[in-house]
Amino acid sequence: MPKPLPTTDFYAHHSPFGAFASFTLGRHGFRGGFGSELAGPADQDVYIAVVRPGKGVEALPFFRPSSSPSIAYTGEVAPSDSARSAHWRTFGPEEIVRTLGWATDSWAAGSLTFTLHTPFGPVPDVVEIGDGEMRRHLCPAIFAELTVDNRDGDGEAFGFFGIGAADPLRPLSDAGNGLLGMARGGEYGFAAAPLPGRALRELQTWELETAVALADSDAAPPIERLANRGGLLMTVPAGEIRTCRLALGFFRHGIVTSGIATTYLYSRLFSDLDTALAFAVENIDEYIDTARLCDEELDATGLSDERKFLVAHSTHSYLGSTMLLHDERGALPRSPFATTVHRPIWVVNEGEYRMLNTLDLTVDQAFFELLYHPWTLRNTLDLLIHRYSYTDEVQDATDPARPRFPGGISFTHDMGVANQFAPARFSAYERPDLSGCFSYMTYEQLCNFCLCAALYGLPTVLAEGDVFWLAAHRNTLHACLRSLLHRDGPDALRNGLMSFDSGRCRNGQEITTYDSLDPSLGQARGSAYLAVKTWAAYLALSRCFDTLGEEPSAVEAEERAACAAATIAAQWREVDEFFPALFEKDSPGGAARTLPVVESLVYPYLWGDEDAVSPYGRYGQLISQLRRHMKAALTPGICIDRVSGGLKITSVSENTWLSKLFLIQFVAETILGLKVPPSTDQAHARWLREGEARNHAFTDQVRSTDGADLGSRFYPRGVTSHLWMI
Amino acid sequence: MPKPLPTTDFYAHHSPFGAFASFTLGRHGFRGGFGSELAGPADQDVYIAVVRPGKGVEALPFFRPSSSPSIAYTGEVAPSDSARSAHWRTFGPEEIVRTLGWATDSWAAGSLTFTLHTPFGPVPDVVEIGDGEMRRHLCPAIFAELTVDNRDGDGEAFGFFGIGAADPLRPLSDAGNGLLGMARGGEYGFAAAPLPGRALRELQTWELETAVALADSDAAPPIERLANRGGLLMTVPAGEIRTCRLALGFFRHGIVTSGIATTYLYSRLFSDLDTALAFAVENIDEYIDTARLCDEELDATGLSDERKFLVAHSTHSYLGSTMLLHDERGALPRSPFATTVHRPIWVVNEGEYRMLNTLDLTVDQAFFELLYHPWTLRNTLDLLIHRYSYTDEVQDATDPARPRFPGGISFTHDMGVANQFAPARFSAYERPDLSGCFSYMTYEQLCNFCLCAALYGLPTVLAEGDVFWLAAHRNTLHACLRSLLHRDGPDALRNGLMSFDSGRCRNGQEITTYDSLDPSLGQARGSAYLAVKTWAAYLALSRCFDTLGEEPSAVEAEERAACAAATIAAQWREVDEFFPALFEKDSPGGAARTLPVVESLVYPYLWGDEDAVSPYGRYGQLISQLRRHMKAALTPGICIDRVSGGLKITSVSENTWLSKLFLIQFVAETILGLKVPPSTDQAHARWLREGEARNHAFTDQVRSTDGADLGSRFYPRGVTSHLWMI
Repeated sequence: MPKPLPTTDFYAHHSPFGAFASFTLGRHGFRGGFGSELAGPADQDVYIAVVRPGKGVEALPFFRPSSSPSIAYTGEVAPSDSARSAHWRTFGPEEIVRTLGWATDSWAAGSLTFTLHTPFGPVPDVVEIGDGEMRRHLCPAIFAELTVDNRDGDGEAFGFFGIGAADPLRPLSDAGNGLLGMARGGEYGFAAAPLPGRALRELQTWELETAVALADSDAAPPIERLANRGGLLMTVPAGEIRTCRLALGFFRHGIVTSGIATTYLYSRLFSDLDTALAFAVENIDEYIDTARLCDEELDATGLSDERKFLVAHSTHSYLGSTMLLHDERGALPRSPFATTVHRPIWVVNEGEYRMLNTLDLTVDQAFFELLYHPWTLRNTLDLLIHRYSYTDEVQDATDPARPRFPGGISFTHDMGVANQFAPARFSAYERPDLSGCFSYMTYEQLCNFCLCAALYGLPTVLAEGDVFWLAAHRNTLHACLRSLLHRDGPDALRNGLMSFDSGRCRNGQEITTYDSLDPSLGQARGSAYLAVKTWAAYLALSRCFDTLGEEPSAVEAEERAACAAATIAAQWREVDEFFPALFEKDSPGGAARTLPVVESLVYPYLWGDEDAVSPYGRYGQLISQLRRHMKAALTPGICIDRVSGGLKITSVSENTWLSKLFLIQFVAETILGLKVPPSTDQAHARWLREGEARNHAFTDQVRSTDGADLGSRFYPRGVTSHLWMI
Repeated sequence: MPKPLPTTDFYAHHSPFGAFASFTLGRHGFRGGFGSELAGPADQDVYIAVVRPGKGVEALPFFRPSSSPSIAYTGEVAPSDSARSAHWRTFGPEEIVRTLGWATDSWAAGSLTFTLHTPFGPVPDVVEIGDGEMRRHLCPAIFAELTVDNRDGDGEAFGFFGIGAADPLRPLSDAGNGLLGMARGGEYGFAAAPLPGRALRELQTWELETAVALADSDAAPPIERLANRGGLLMTVPAGEIRTCRLALGFFRHGIVTSGIATTYLYSRLFSDLDTALAFAVENIDEYIDTARLCDEELDATGLSDERKFLVAHSTHSYLGSTMLLHDERGALPRSPFATTVHRPIWVVNEGEYRMLNTLDLTVDQAFFELLYHPWTLRNTLDLLIHRYSYTDEVQDATDPARPRFPGGISFTHDMGVANQFAPARFSAYERPDLSGCFSYMTYEQLCNFCLCAALYGLPTVLAEGDVFWLAAHRNTLHACLRSLLHRDGPDALRNGLMSFDSGRCRNGQEITTYDSLDPSLGQARGSAYLAVKTWAAYLALSRCFDTLGEEPSAVEAEERAACAAATIAAQWREVDEFFPALFEKDSPGGAARTLPVVESLVYPYLWGDEDAVSPYGRYGQLISQLRRHMKAALTPGICIDRVSGGLKITSVSENTWLSKLFLIQFVAETILGLKVPPSTDQAHARWLREGEARNHAFTDQVRSTDGADLGSRFYPRGVTSHLWMI
C-alpha cells in the first residue's frame, strides 16, 4: 500500500491509455471530473459522499453548492443553496488521508474510502495483436471503488458517487444492458453492475444534494432525465462494510483530427460508450488487480517516498496526454510488419499546450515508452520521417549578410496542435524571424531524432532494440549525419558543434527546448547543453552505423563526436569549475551555470556505451569536467534554490523544469556517481503538492522558490522519473 | 431590401438547415460566433472591421479586448490590453444600421457593411432525391459578405473578418484545396475563394488586434499556428469598393446521439468540414441569391414592419434548432417510399432546453414545416408512433382513491434531451407524482398527435396532404379515438372533454403545454384551452376517417366534437363575456381570462372546414362565444399589457409566450375577423429587440411589461408567425 501523503490538496490525472482523457480530481474546494482533450481539469461537480439518514451527508470536497437550473423551466426561484446544502458537510484537510500509488489514487475520510484505479503496463504493438487483446489494452475507461464502512453504524448508511455536469445526463439503465450508472450522451459516463437486493440505485435530479441527503432504501431515488446531476446510491446495512466497483469511461466517435483524418483506435474496437463501459465492468476485477500490482511494484522499489510520489504523479499525467489514433484514410504508409487492418498513429499531447508529438518531449518520454510500448516511439519516428521531416539551407547568422550554405534534413518541433495536424514539413510552433520563444529548433530536433532512433533501434537497458527498423531507415541516418556536418560550418572551420542556423529562421536564430528560459539555455548556437547533445547524437549515429555494418560512417560519426568533445572540453573554466552556458564570448547569460549540460550523458549509458560516459574512458576529460561542473552546480545558491532546497535548471533563473531535473538527477547519481541531496526531492514533491502547481496535475515549469506554476501545466514529460527505477 | 431597424442591439441565430448549429451574433459588447448544439449564443470574439493604416481600426462591437494566451508559453506578461486595443474603435449604436431580412442580417457602419445570409426554402423529402440535390439543401454552411467602401479613401484600406476562439485555429490554406480562411479542427470554420492579386490573405495570431491594426499590403500577415485568433484580411485600394464572400461552416463527425445512434445526415454527403466549405464556396453565389429572394418575398408581403421582423427573427431561430440525423444502425423502420439508402431522423431541438421533438412544439411548428418540408412532420409522426407512443390506464384524480379505468394510446412530451434519445415510450420531461411543471401531458399530446396527423395527412391550405400515410396509420387513428373516449370518463358521464388523468401521473395530475404559467393554463383537466383543442382533435379524426371512407368512425368523432362543443358552450359566462380558464368550480385562477382558448380554431380552418369555425356554421354558438371572449380579452388591463401594449396569454400572469400570441393573432384576425391593435406587434418586436429577451435570439417566454426573458430562450417555436402570410 502506498503511504499516506503529508498533504492531500492537489489535482492528479486519472486516465486510460491512449484516449486523451482524464477524470481529474484532487484540489479541495475545486471541481474536476470527466474531461476529454482538455488543457486542464474539467469543471464538473464530483460528489463522493456517505449518508447517514438523520445525521446528514459527509463528502469529499470536490464540488461546489450550486443553484438549480430548473428555474429556466419554471420561471421560479429555486430554494437557496444554503438551504439545500444544509445537510452536507465536506471533510476538512485534516480528516482526509490520501495515498497516490503508481496506478491508484485513494481518499479515506470518516467511514468513506474512494479509490481511483488507473492500471497500466506493457502494451504490445497493436498491429501485431488481435482485436480481443487490443480491446483489453485500449478500453477507454478507468476504475473506481467506493467503500462505506458501516460496521459501527446503528442504522442504514449510504454511499454516493455522482457528478454535476454542464449538460443533461442519462441513466445507464435506460440502455437496458444490465448496467447502472450515469452518462452524458455518448461522451462519458460511469457504470457498475447491480448489487444484490437493489442495493445500488441510480439517482438523477437537479436538487442532487437534497435527494442524496434524503436517501431512503424504501423510496425510489428521483430520476429526472432533464437534470445535469446524477449518480449511484449504495445502501449499506448497519454492521456491514460494502464496496461498489465502478468503471468510468470516455468516448469520441468519428474523425477527431484535421490535417490527417483520424479516429480514436478504440472506436474501432468498441461501438460506443455503453459497449466500452460494459466491457470495463465485465473485466473490472482484472483491471483493479493490475492497478494494485502496479502499486506494489513501485512500493517494492528502494525509492524514497518523495520519488515514489513523483513517479506516480508523473505517470498519471503522462497517460492523460496519450492518444492512440487510427489513420482513417490511409494518409500514411502502413507498417510492413502489420498483421491487422489497423493503422495506428500515436500522439502524446503536450499538456496544456496540446501540441502533437513535440519532439523535444518525445526524446524525454522515450525512456518510458521503451519500457512499456517501444512501438509507440517507432510510430512517432515513422511519422517524423514520412511527414514531419524537411530539408533546409543553413545560414551564418553571425554575419549580417547571412550567407547561405547547403543544409540537410531535420524534423519539426511538433506535428500540430489541439487535434489539428500541421501541414507536412511544418510544426505548429516554429516561426521565422524570431530569436526567442517560437523560433525554429532545427538543430536540436535533428539531434533528438538521432537519439530517439538510436534508443529505439539499438539494444538498450530499456528495450531489445529493432535493427530491422534501423536498416530500413539507413538512408535517413546517413542524411542526419550529413545534416549535422553541414550545420557545423564550412569544412575547414568545423569544430563538431553547431555553427549555422537554419535558413528557415530568416532573420531570427535557432533556439533549444529551453525556449522560455533566459538566453543561457534558450539560444541554440553556442549552447553548452546542445553541444553535449551534439556529441551524443554523433555517438548515436556511430553506434547505429556500427550495428548496420557501415564501418566508414561509424568511424566518421565517432570522429565528429571526438571533435565535439574536444571543442567542449576546451571551454572548461578551470578556476570556477564550470562550463559556461553559452560558448560565445560576451553572450548575455553566458556565465550562467546550468544543469542540462550533463543531460545527454544518459543516451550512451542506456545503449551500453559505458566507456563513453566514464571519467576513465575515451571521453574521460569531458566526462570529468562535466562531473566537476555538476558537483559545483549542486550547491545552494547556484543550482539548488536557497529558499526551497529544490533544483534549478540554471543558476540565473527561478524558472525550473521538473522533468529535466529528474533526468539530470539520474545522470548525476547513476552515471556521474554524485550525491544529490534528498532534500531536492522533498522540495520537488512539495512544489507539486503544495505550490500553485497543484492546480494543474503534474506541472513541469515551476518557480524554484515556491512551486508556483510558470508553464507546461497538466504535462506528460515527468515520466523521465522512470529512469530512477532502471 | 429590409428596412433599417429602430434598434439594433439583439442576438439572432444564423443557421443552416438541419445542422443544429448557429453563428449567433448581434448583442453589442457581447461575443457570439460559431456554436454547435448549444443552449445559447457561443462565446467567441467576432472581429468585423475596417482598417485605414495610420488612422486605426473601426469594428462592429462583437468582441472583447483580451490578453494574449502566449504568456502560458513564455512565462512573461504580454503587453496590456489597452496598449494593443488603442488603435481599435468600436462603432456606437447610433452609427450602426441593421436590417434583418427573412434570410439576411446586415450591419452597415461607416464604410463597412457585413451581411450574414441564411438562405432557406422548400426542402424535398430527402429519401426521394439524389445525393447531389441533397448536398445543396444540407450543406452545413451559412454565408457572409464583407464590404469595404474605399471610394472616398485617399489610401489603401482593409476589411477584416475573424474570430477569437477557445482553442487554436488552423489556416484553411494548409489543406491545400484552394480556399483561404480559418477553421477550428474539423468542427467549424470560414472560407473564401482567393481574390485577384492576393487581395485576400489569412492572418492568425494571439495579438490579433495589433496585427490587424498594422495591416500592410506589402507585409505578409502573421500566421501563428498555435494561436486561437485569426481571420481574413481583404485589401481595398483607394477609390474602390470591394466585397468578399465567405462561407461559414459547421461539422460534427460520427455518432452524435445516444439512445438511438445517429449521425448528422450531412456527414454522409460531405466527408469533412473542408469538403463542405469547398462546396459552399463553389455555390456561394447561388446561395446568396436564394437568401436575397427570401428577403424579397417577405418584403413583398403586406405585413407591417414589426411583423416582418418577427417572421424573420423567428425563422432564424427555428432553423438554428433543426437537426437532420441519420439512423445509423437501422433502429427504426425505413420509409416504404424511400428511394435512397438514407434513413433520416428529423429533430427540432427545444431551444435552450434542447429537448428533442417536443410534441407541443411540433404541433405549432407544423404550419412552417408543411409549407417548406412536410416530410419532416411525417418523420416526427412516424417516430412518435414507432417509439414514443404508449398505452396507459387512466384514473379519476378527483376521487382520493384514484380508481383506475382502461386508458389508451398517447405520445410522449418529447423524445429526449440534449442529443440523448429517451428510452422508448418515455420522454425526458415527464415525471409522476407532480401537479405542475414536469408532470405528464398525456391528454394534450394525444390531441397534438391527432392534429399533427390531420395537418399532415389531409389537404390543407399549407400542403397537399398524404392520404396514403393516413391509410397506413388507420389503426393508430382508431386507437387515438378510443383513447380520447376513455379519457372522457365512464360512458354515462361523458361530456366530450377530459375527465380522467393518466395513470402515469400516480399521485399527480396532468398539465398542459402552458406548464410554467399559473394553474389557469397549467392544469389539464377542466382547461378551457384543452377543451377547445379536444373539440379540434375530434374534428381532426372525423375528417381523417371521412377521407379514409370510414363513415361510422367519422360520425362518431364528429358527435364527440359536438358533445365537447356543447359542454364548452355551457361554460360561457354571459355577463362577463368570457370562458373561465378552468371549468372546475372554485379552481384557483379559474376566473382568469386566457387567449389560448381560441388557439385550436386554426386547425379546422387550415384543412378547409370553414363551417366549423364560422359563427354561422354547425358550431356557431361556440364560435360566437369564442369571438366575444376574444374581443373582450383584447382590452388593455385584461390581455393587453397596460405598460407595454403587448398581448398577455392570460390576464393573471405577466409571463406571456410570443409564439402562441402569433398563432392567436392569426386566429383572431383571420378566423374570427377581429382587429388586434398593431401596437401589440410593436410591443412584441420591442421585447425581442430591447428587452432582456434580446440576449437569447428569439425568446418565447417573456415578461409582458418589458420583454424580460422568463424562459424558452433561443427558441424555435416563433415560426407560428408564418401563419400571417398564408
